[in-house]
Amino acid sequence: MTATRTETDSFGPLEVPADKYWGAQTQRSILNFPIGWERQPVPIIRALGVIKKACAMANKAQGKLDAKIADAIIEAAGEVIEGKFDDNFPLVVWQTGSGTQSNMNANEVIGNRAIEILGGVMGTKDPVHPNDHCNMGQSSNDTFPTAMHVGIAMQARDVLLPGLRKLHAALEAKSEAFKDIIKIGRTHTQDATPLTLGQEFSGYAHQVKKGIERIEACLGDIYELAQGGTAVGTGLNTQVGWAETVAANMAEITGLPFVTAPNKFEALAAHDAMVMFSGALKTVAASLFKIANDIRLLGSGPRCGLGELILPENEPGSSIMPGKVNPTQAEALTMVCAHVMGNDAAVGFAGSQGHFELNVYNPMMSYNVLQSMQLLGDSASAFTDNMVVGIEANEPRIEKLLHESLMLVTALAPTIGYDNATKVAKTAHKNGTTLKEEAIKLGFVDAETFDKVVRPEQMIGPKA
Amino acid sequence: MTATRTETDSFGPLEVPADKYWGAQTQRSILNFPIGWERQPVPIIRALGVIKKACAMANKAQGKLDAKIADAIIEAAGEVIEGKFDDNFPLVVWQTGSGTQSNMNANEVIGNRAIEILGGVMGTKDPVHPNDHCNMGQSSNDTFPTAMHVGIAMQARDVLLPGLRKLHAALEAKSEAFKDIIKIGRTHTQDATPLTLGQEFSGYAHQVKKGIERIEACLGDIYELAQGGTAVGTGLNTQVGWAETVAANMAEITGLPFVTAPNKFEALAAHDAMVMFSGALKTVAASLFKIANDIRLLGSGPRCGLGELILPENEPGSSIMPGKVNPTQAEALTMVCAHVMGNDAAVGFAGSQGHFELNVYNPMMSYNVLQSMQLLGDSASAFTDNMVVGIEANEPRIEKLLHESLMLVTALAPTIGYDNATKVAKTAHKNGTTLKEEAIKLGFVDAETFDKVVRPEQMIGPKA
Amino acid sequence: MTATRTETDSFGPLEVPADKYWGAQTQRSILNFPIGWERQPVPIIRALGVIKKACAMANKAQGKLDAKIADAIIEAAGEVIEGKFDDNFPLVVWQTGSGTQSNMNANEVIGNRAIEILGGVMGTKDPVHPNDHCNMGQSSNDTFPTAMHVGIAMQARDVLLPGLRKLHAALEAKSEAFKDIIKIGRTHTQDATPLTLGQEFSGYAHQVKKGIERIEACLGDIYELAQGGTAVGTGLNTQVGWAETVAANMAEITGLPFVTAPNKFEALAAHDAMVMFSGALKTVAASLFKIANDIRLLGSGPRCGLGELILPENEPGSSIMPGKVNPTQAEALTMVCAHVMGNDAAVGFAGSQGHFELNVYNPMMSYNVLQSMQLLGDSASAFTDNMVVGIEANEPRIEKLLHESLMLVTALAPTIGYDNATKVAKTAHKNGTTLKEEAIKLGFVDAETFDKVVRPEQMIGPKA
Amino acid sequence: MTATRTETDSFGPLEVPADKYWGAQTQRSILNFPIGWERQPVPIIRALGVIKKACAMANKAQGKLDAKIADAIIEAAGEVIEGKFDDNFPLVVWQTGSGTQSNMNANEVIGNRAIEILGGVMGTKDPVHPNDHCNMGQSSNDTFPTAMHVGIAMQARDVLLPGLRKLHAALEAKSEAFKDIIKIGRTHTQDATPLTLGQEFSGYAHQVKKGIERIEACLGDIYELAQGGTAVGTGLNTQVGWAETVAANMAEITGLPFVTAPNKFEALAAHDAMVMFSGALKTVAASLFKIANDIRLLGSGPRCGLGELILPENEPGSSIMPGKVNPTQAEALTMVCAHVMGNDAAVGFAGSQGHFELNVYNPMMSYNVLQSMQLLGDSASAFTDNMVVGIEANEPRIEKLLHESLMLVTALAPTIGYDNATKVAKTAHKNGTTLKEEAIKLGFVDAETFDKVVRPEQMIGPKA
Repeated sequence: MTATRTETDSFGPLEVPADKYWGAQTQRSILNFPIGWERQPVPIIRALGVIKKACAMANKAQGKLDAKIADAIIEAAGEVIEGKFDDNFPLVVWQTGSGTQSNMNANEVIGNRAIEILGGVMGTKDPVHPNDHCNMGQSSNDTFPTAMHVGIAMQARDVLLPGLRKLHAALEAKSEAFKDIIKIGRTHTQDATPLTLGQEFSGYAHQVKKGIERIEACLGDIYELAQGGTAVGTGLNTQVGWAETVAANMAEITGLPFVTAPNKFEALAAHDAMVMFSGALKTVAASLFKIANDIRLLGSGPRCGLGELILPENEPGSSIMPGKVNPTQAEALTMVCAHVMGNDAAVGFAGSQGHFELNVYNPMMSYNVLQSMQLLGDSASAFTDNMVVGIEANEPRIEKLLHESLMLVTALAPTIGYDNATKVAKTAHKNGTTLKEEAIKLGFVDAETFDKVVRPEQMIGPKA
Repeated sequence: MTATRTETDSFGPLEVPADKYWGAQTQRSILNFPIGWERQPVPIIRALGVIKKACAMANKAQGKLDAKIADAIIEAAGEVIEGKFDDNFPLVVWQTGSGTQSNMNANEVIGNRAIEILGGVMGTKDPVHPNDHCNMGQSSNDTFPTAMHVGIAMQARDVLLPGLRKLHAALEAKSEAFKDIIKIGRTHTQDATPLTLGQEFSGYAHQVKKGIERIEACLGDIYELAQGGTAVGTGLNTQVGWAETVAANMAEITGLPFVTAPNKFEALAAHDAMVMFSGALKTVAASLFKIANDIRLLGSGPRCGLGELILPENEPGSSIMPGKVNPTQAEALTMVCAHVMGNDAAVGFAGSQGHFELNVYNPMMSYNVLQSMQLLGDSASAFTDNMVVGIEANEPRIEKLLHESLMLVTALAPTIGYDNATKVAKTAHKNGTTLKEEAIKLGFVDAETFDKVVRPEQMIGPKA
Repeated sequence: MTATRTETDSFGPLEVPADKYWGAQTQRSILNFPIGWERQPVPIIRALGVIKKACAMANKAQGKLDAKIADAIIEAAGEVIEGKFDDNFPLVVWQTGSGTQSNMNANEVIGNRAIEILGGVMGTKDPVHPNDHCNMGQSSNDTFPTAMHVGIAMQARDVLLPGLRKLHAALEAKSEAFKDIIKIGRTHTQDATPLTLGQEFSGYAHQVKKGIERIEACLGDIYELAQGGTAVGTGLNTQVGWAETVAANMAEITGLPFVTAPNKFEALAAHDAMVMFSGALKTVAASLFKIANDIRLLGSGPRCGLGELILPENEPGSSIMPGKVNPTQAEALTMVCAHVMGNDAAVGFAGSQGHFELNVYNPMMSYNVLQSMQLLGDSASAFTDNMVVGIEANEPRIEKLLHESLMLVTALAPTIGYDNATKVAKTAHKNGTTLKEEAIKLGFVDAETFDKVVRPEQMIGPKA
Repeated sequence: MTATRTETDSFGPLEVPADKYWGAQTQRSILNFPIGWERQPVPIIRALGVIKKACAMANKAQGKLDAKIADAIIEAAGEVIEGKFDDNFPLVVWQTGSGTQSNMNANEVIGNRAIEILGGVMGTKDPVHPNDHCNMGQSSNDTFPTAMHVGIAMQARDVLLPGLRKLHAALEAKSEAFKDIIKIGRTHTQDATPLTLGQEFSGYAHQVKKGIERIEACLGDIYELAQGGTAVGTGLNTQVGWAETVAANMAEITGLPFVTAPNKFEALAAHDAMVMFSGALKTVAASLFKIANDIRLLGSGPRCGLGELILPENEPGSSIMPGKVNPTQAEALTMVCAHVMGNDAAVGFAGSQGHFELNVYNPMMSYNVLQSMQLLGDSASAFTDNMVVGIEANEPRIEKLLHESLMLVTALAPTIGYDNATKVAKTAHKNGTTLKEEAIKLGFVDAETFDKVVRPEQMIGPKA
């Protein structure tokens, strides 16, 4: 049997584990919402710490909050930011849609810890009250949306963007390394005109580069914080300038360019900034899916596939087929991308479902967005380390395929016309012969002209 | 520093924690896939236990597997089924798309445990080899899809269906309890003709009843197992009849009506049964969303909303607004429903992406489907316990609204015609008067006729 | 200038084109909803004809509707069913969410046509009134959902199922034709153990077979009709038995097994049957996507791809590359499948959004479902005719690839163990040699044993 | 029987209608793709005209194309831009995924029209050849993606942004008009602290304003054109500088700031810019859904709903309930929004499915994006005209509800503490009394203090 402590809220007393700092409202949520296995993500917990610290700083400065209490709250909130209380946030995602219970979880933990700092008795709300002090000037309705934005912004800086930048650099490096390897192009999955392997990888790199730019562009709206809107967006129970101050405090605490949202009614009742941000995540997912899928197909084989790329071998691939090696990193990444598409659908749906002054899909929206960010960042990083950097070109194979292609005939079209060039290609295909043979036999060009015109190395860019 | 043990696979030796049973392939997956925080769900782990036991039984019966080894595997697999080794399955969802690494995780844990049972040295693969013995007659390509189906079937029986059945019973009970309460109907969110509150709840109950039936119907295809297809669906390295035997063994172990899939090529290369099953989950989500949304709107107030239902008060609703109580269970449930819609989109996408003989979105698909099931089952149950059973009708309010409605005029239409009835309603609306007043004033009926025709209690069903 | 006729509704008079049968409410919808280019699909129009005819028959039989008027309505509605008035249904999908305006469109067209039949003056509503007579015993709230179900059921019979059955038959025929062609299998896009090309196609055929069964199973709920629920599900303004009678009439008119829905409150307020049906369409889309994608990859080339299948050449493939031929039918089909997935997401969302007694996403839901059905049916048919029936196996290529594969080593594993077999495969891969060479060199088997054990034709099924 | 003309392509001759300008490849597509009812949207057709004109201008300037032929092509393409040949583009969306057949449709129509202008015989390809001249320097692979971007940019300027700007202006005007009307706020659908109706509408207006900004921001990538990449992105068969010239020409023709895409490999193989743009459309859809949903709920009634807004009455609302008026514009708009969410899912899926040098989901992606734009633009406009501008505040009702609210107690909390304020609200709720009564009775404040503190007009903003 675990030792307990009695905590109370307006619904009455409740026993909570004695070794935890949370109070009655947190405990009540545990009892009322035995749903699923998904807890509030860590970035949300840390962000709540950021908010409580920033607000206590502002309340102290305004003289509304006793300095001693304020300092204790600031210290306790700082510990939440540092991760010391991650295990004191037991609540699941599937609670009240405003995130009120997680906001109260933060108020209760910080309140009890501040009481402890000040030498009081936990559970007494004295001298620090979770609502009157820790939540001073705040409502869950502005606090939780703020926590969502702060958490996303930190996650972007710490997980998502580093992963994407690492991948981008690796793809760029491969593009440079492969710049002189001319290969068959493929459109409609069918043989087409040539390009360099470096050009092919430059397309991948450009996709990731644009993805990073899109994420960064969408962060602009994420930096706008709802804090200061309190219950319905009006800012009731705050003072003029408070919203700006707490945003500035949060910027200082995190080093991120947070500002107060220009319209708090919108900031509480809708989460359009997150819907848009999720759309950028989905776009990145579409990009990475294409890249990973191409790489596994270009690396298919080892003997019966396209075989143009040699992929790193990281682990045994099959429990039954000895010696099999599979493009598992591409699989993890494409699974992540498909999952992110689903998350985006959920976020868009939820974002549309606000009623009046509040959207009550907060924890579910932030869970989905933060999960997408974690997965994209992590898998971009793992895909880089365990796949991209180790990719080698199978040059003999690439060379062989290039010279078998019938689509080199395209270079002839400006000289002999589309219709004649078509005849050359079709005849060669039918007879299993070369373009050169048939072009000469059909009387469209002589050997010398053919050799001058049909040169893969001159087909990889516009004419000077 | 944790004590370790050396394990090996074809890529070489690796250190694993000494207090864990897994081997080199599991450890390699941990190192290669530091992606996200989502582990293989417990139903997958238990299902792998079911498979390993069923296969060892079959292999022993066929005389292919030494009885002593078989018995040790059967014992170890039984412990996996009982949950004794849940913490020995550390792998995340975002690994190889075939689930090979989790299959090997099972082979390695069961292998080492069987070695232990037989008094051998863990890590030696002697006398029990993870591939040659634990995986005998199996490939990840048939095993993991089988684990997905077995896990889903158990999850349906143990979590999803009990939750939905509990909700259905509670809604039915309310429908019966409210059967004599006549209330205003609403279409297009606007006042419409009356119905009973019991009838309204009967619609909810019917939705859930149909949802249960749809889930049950779709379980039919889930009971078909891929096991026996081995690497590509052909059944290489098995014997005729083996697939049927292991399916029968799994049916016996679980008490669920598993059979072998009629076409193993389809069973490995596609997961249509799961896509369809997910569609049924999405349908249930659409139903529950509508029910929860209605209930919170009908219970809106307490003073400025529709106010027809009195919802149970479970916890303080606001960190800033004293005394506020919110329909938090409806919020948790609608968040779950929106999330399930996203999961379904992800599952459909992934289900379409098989290549040739294998779909490699296995762990991601099962993670999404099992999560949807857990969340729907849990939240249906919590919504029942903490919301539905406590709903009361606010009869005075219902009565008041009913008699103010202008749509009672519909009862007049068969008597005075649609166009005249329209005039009555529009005039009463314009003048803020009653239908009766205006109907008489306009000369369409006398008071007696009006009172005889416009009777809510006769508007709630077809005429006898 | 077009000649016009004056029509009226409760909002006043409006001019309508003299050569059209519609009335004021239809015209008002044209003016108020200038949104998009998507009209009500033809199956909805024809289904409204079915309903109006069935109801007039019932109303006549019950003696509530004058026989002469009833007969004129029945005749006019019959003409709608035959398609004579398709161009009299100008309304777009994006109107009122109940479909009321399209229901009134039907009432007005049939009313005016009946007036014409009876020698009256169009626009006078005499002797046939669009509401009092054509809509007798009906509300849009039961009528439009009924039209959705009737339209879907007809579309399934006439377009979707014929297309899928044609495709299934063609895939089955190919499976039979290719049954003796042994080829390399591919898992994770990488070389795997062999199977026959016929087995590969049997997987495709089985997917389509199951898809047909899933569609048919989900039609069960579609055959349940809302008609008789009238405004809010109570059946106000109908008589006991009327719902059953009109359902029977509709069954007789269409030859489809329609019955009355057991709970009309559910049938108006939710469209779960359609959400589920759409899930079945999505599942079919996932199946067809996989099949089409495989076929274009197996047919990739002609010289630098996998090249196992020779695909029919239907048209020039490129405006710049002479002689290029592309798997365009696979492209049309995969575009359709991706589109159907989007439609399904829209349908699920909309299905969850009912309020109280009515879901007001009717026209949008039926538009999406009917479009998905049309596209899947049409493209399955075109894909069959222009792709599947013309597919040929490139047997020399298939034979060549099969014998190069290293995964034939799997057959050795039961004899020499997984670990030794791995060594054989890895060494052969590294040295670019054959399995046989290395297996002998490593001393695991002699040549004779190798030749006896590693035989592709014995690797395509379980051992006897 | 229609008169026909013989046209030919590399697959042979075909009869086409004599009164149409298209050629054999267009006709062949009609025959091979009898799929669905969705034709290429008009913006795509016009955009193809823009491209053909811009390219002919560049080819003439470079001296590669005979001036007489170039001028005829420029004239004919100009007619396509003006819409004179819309009915000469019969192809459906569900054709080859590169849009090659629609590109050839443009080449053929413009070629034959140019032949006609020059006095030649249609179908002879003399003196104007559809490939050698109309398609000079182009491939479908760069042309169709360019048409998609050009079409979207024109659609944004001409349909989407005007619709959104109109809606934004109307919401802003209402926000201003309603700025002094204080009303009850609602969170979790439950009574909350007050705000002004103008503030509530300011949130809506801000959502739309941000939506416009998001669309505009995402247009940046849309202005980047693939033209010049030709077959696989290399620019084969063009000259250095050509891509820049044709982009400049298109900018001049359309007045839109088109530039050449910096990486043509990405521009052909992926459509990330469109996926992102679709995400912005989805975000707008989420915004408009919320706004429309709020408005219909706030306008619910007339007697049994919230009744705070009086919505314009546009048409009869029910075929059975006389006098019923419904928020039909909100219904059309929310149906559109749900549909756009589905389109976005389809676009994201398709965007991920490129293979190697080409994404072959072109027509399907542009169809979805252009449809979303048309529907959002049209419905925003109709919703403004027929709903927003006519909304009136029901001030007596608003006033009544405001003063009944228990959440005014929030103003007391800073004075008497959260816990005491809770007691006041709960007691008043239980007893059906006023806050003031209970606050005094409980001894927390005197009447004077209460009246000074609890003043709605001081609860709608931060304290000065």
